[in-house]
Amino acid sequence: MKVTVTVRRRPEISDPQGTTVARALRDLGYDEVRKVRVDKEIRLEVEGDDAAAIEARVTEMCEKLLANPVMDDYEVRVEA
Amino acid sequence: MKVTVTVRRRPEISDPQGTTVARALRDLGYDEVRKVRVDKEIRLEVEGDDAAAIEARVTEMCEKLLANPVMDDYEVRVEA
Repeated sequence: MKVTVTVRRRPEISDPQGTTVARALRDLGYDEVRKVRVDKEIRLEVEGDDAAAIEARVTEMCEKLLANPVMDDYEVRVEA
Repeated sequence: MKVTVTVRRRPEISDPQGTTVARALRDLGYDEVRKVRVDKEIRLEVEGDDAAAIEARVTEMCEKLLANPVMDDYEVRVEA
């Protein structure tokens, strides 16, 4: 099954990469850019066919490795 | 308006970060993990209210800065 995990730094925590990208875009003349955040989309292929069990296992992977539970929010979507 | 850009390394190009994450997950006992790709989700806040014009400008930003046109595929979604 395919699983997509989106890992986003919490809104109250600064995102230096996003700030740098926003500045670079403005330097290129894109003055309409107000704010940029750069997050991660992690796509997994996982064996098994029990979507609920897979979602639980991938949530565990997020807690242990894919996300930083102190800094990040994450979202797990089992796709097919 | 909020715009989300997903930047994914082309499938035929290797993704060392994804390979490393897959190996680390298997080392933790998640043997069901077959493949992992780590991509970028870039969220922009852009001034203006013409969705079509904004989509065109952000596509230009992808070509110039947000994506590597040789290595990456990207997708632009204007949200609200």
